[in-house]
Amino acid sequence: MRRPIPADFAPPASAARRRAWEEADRAARPVRLARLRARLAASGIDAYFGLRREEIRYLAGVALGEGEEKVAGHSGRFLVSGDAVVVLADSRYTIQARHEAPDARIEPVTYDLAARWAELCASIGARRVAVPAADLSHALWGELAAAAPRVELVPAEAWVDADRAVKEPAEVERIEAACAVADRALAALLSEIRPGLTEAKLAWRLEVLMREGGAEALAFDVAALAGPGAALPHGSPGARRIRAGVVLLFDFGAQVAGYRSDMTRTLFVGEPRARDLAVYELVARAQSASIAYLEDEVAAGRVPDGRTADGAARGVIVAAGHGGHFGHGTGHGIGLATHELPSLSRVAPETPLPSPTVFSVEPGIYLEGRTGVRIEDLVLLDVAARRVERLTRFPREVLVVG
Amino acid sequence: MRRPIPADFAPPASAARRRAWEEADRAARPVRLARLRARLAASGIDAYFGLRREEIRYLAGVALGEGEEKVAGHSGRFLVSGDAVVVLADSRYTIQARHEAPDARIEPVTYDLAARWAELCASIGARRVAVPAADLSHALWGELAAAAPRVELVPAEAWVDADRAVKEPAEVERIEAACAVADRALAALLSEIRPGLTEAKLAWRLEVLMREGGAEALAFDVAALAGPGAALPHGSPGARRIRAGVVLLFDFGAQVAGYRSDMTRTLFVGEPRARDLAVYELVARAQSASIAYLEDEVAAGRVPDGRTADGAARGVIVAAGHGGHFGHGTGHGIGLATHELPSLSRVAPETPLPSPTVFSVEPGIYLEGRTGVRIEDLVLLDVAARRVERLTRFPREVLVVG
Repeated sequence: MRRPIPADFAPPASAARRRAWEEADRAARPVRLARLRARLAASGIDAYFGLRREEIRYLAGVALGEGEEKVAGHSGRFLVSGDAVVVLADSRYTIQARHEAPDARIEPVTYDLAARWAELCASIGARRVAVPAADLSHALWGELAAAAPRVELVPAEAWVDADRAVKEPAEVERIEAACAVADRALAALLSEIRPGLTEAKLAWRLEVLMREGGAEALAFDVAALAGPGAALPHGSPGARRIRAGVVLLFDFGAQVAGYRSDMTRTLFVGEPRARDLAVYELVARAQSASIAYLEDEVAAGRVPDGRTADGAARGVIVAAGHGGHFGHGTGHGIGLATHELPSLSRVAPETPLPSPTVFSVEPGIYLEGRTGVRIEDLVLLDVAARRVERLTRFPREVLVVG
Repeated sequence: MRRPIPADFAPPASAARRRAWEEADRAARPVRLARLRARLAASGIDAYFGLRREEIRYLAGVALGEGEEKVAGHSGRFLVSGDAVVVLADSRYTIQARHEAPDARIEPVTYDLAARWAELCASIGARRVAVPAADLSHALWGELAAAAPRVELVPAEAWVDADRAVKEPAEVERIEAACAVADRALAALLSEIRPGLTEAKLAWRLEVLMREGGAEALAFDVAALAGPGAALPHGSPGARRIRAGVVLLFDFGAQVAGYRSDMTRTLFVGEPRARDLAVYELVARAQSASIAYLEDEVAAGRVPDGRTADGAARGVIVAAGHGGHFGHGTGHGIGLATHELPSLSRVAPETPLPSPTVFSVEPGIYLEGRTGVRIEDLVLLDVAARRVERLTRFPREVLVVG
């Protein structure tokens, strides 16, 4: 195979394209809010309390960095009622919130959320408030319940997650752009890989190539794992040096205008061992089987489900006697968060997948102390358009480096 | 003032030093566990359920990256009883957990925690389990309570946080090393700063200098904010270009062997404006006032408190008529997390600060649409040793760049 080069993939997004995405978000936000409000109305609930970074951006427009929730206090958290959006912001965040959420009412709230809860709810006429119970701590739930006994907190599960799983065109475009940044970065890294380099050094170089190639952030820390290190599905790159005859697994993703990519490639440093090649080919077949299932369903006008998509990949690996070496699910949705709905796994619902949506297809085989192989692509599923398309364009053929 | 250069600050930690820190952690972990167990015994509770990234590393030895909890599922979460440590890990994390927590029992747990909860608690003889209610979601709390009605979940507040606020020598050393990485990086950046560069470019360069200068990660995203942008205490660097006559605020920190630093410097691009200089000098005086309070107390053999330390800085700013422009607290503890106990603020307890401990002292003044100044140093407080010492060594004098 010809070795991929950066120019094989789409260039970084232009400023005009980025402005168009911002515009699309502005136009979409009222639609997203309307969906949530319809659900409120249907459930006889007055307001929704949003707490997660992704929802804060999706519905309220406030952009927080990964992990920033931990230092932001309640800033960015928001209430949506039938006719109002209220964004909480302490003094550090008020200017940002006013700028990013111009249509919202910005409420200065510091540590005193519980003390102000009754008044905040009253200000939007909310007696029954839907709260994602998976996002709010048990402690704060108790404090809010105690502070305003007349406000009923109604546990809500995945209300916005389900909406977010269905992707708008400008969301798919950004995931695709993030895939291209990652594709280009790996292509650029190939010529730098040589025995003697550490995993940590390669991970850092891949990060630099993404960050200087159009990513405003990483989707998650780069994994660069060599030889037996690749048997750790979520290992961290370390001082291990790569050498000829081992596999080299990269799991990495970029963030572009808020949206993320996620891909894994397992390369071969020098002449591949027969054992590693056999595992690689099995994993590649498993991945193809899952995608073939998706394609077949869509071609037949049916909507595939996440459990069968997992089973298609898993079946290939189990049949080859490696079922015990593939412990994780086959895939996960991605967007503003690296892991979101839908899920492709043994415990995923057998109900139709959302559409249009984007998820990973990433079977792997991990032989402890010896080797590991995973191949991961993001796939766009658009049933109405009869499309199943890999957004990760980097080739999947055996690739020898070093 | 002579412009600082990287060689003014300590070099990156040697491999030997890093091994010594690992050794110190190994030796300290039984002591940390013993403290927790003493608390369990004193409270008549059988076990503690730890959920936060920092506690997972501090007590169980398992290192997760920032934000990795979100994709790790229950992996890394742990139970401590009188005589056992049980670390949960799904298949992706079992090898890592066995390696990093060799003395723990590793339990394979995927999404089925609730289903396995009764059996897990029974396996360590736990009928009453302390759970940090601020770390566990309301939803999972309810699931665990329902799954094992005979296991009592006892809300625990800041049990380990309070222990973690008191720093061991090898913890202070790592925070100090992280400070030096940040000091060196800013010193190296100075000669690169010139009008026309964007905030985003400067933030990225500072990140590269830290990551290539001994940091395994950032403590948080770099803030590089110019002119009116500096009025956003937590703003994100953007496409704004720096120009002569504005302030340039950098808030940044490094992570070294798990421990973090946090510093802010506000520089002047070209000739400072009188207004900005006046604000700068006021903020510097406020910071000195807080540190002077700490020094005076310690010299007198007393233990200072966080509310008075805040008041000392705030008083200077309020007296100058800028009270309304300093909305945040004066400081926060730091260690495995960027923000942890103790707190220096208007609502901090008037009880003695822990000791030895490390926290930031970071007053600021923010004039919306115009300018902002913050000066932030990490300070070691060690009352027994009569020490109050800035671990951030980068000078605080007015510094003109560009």
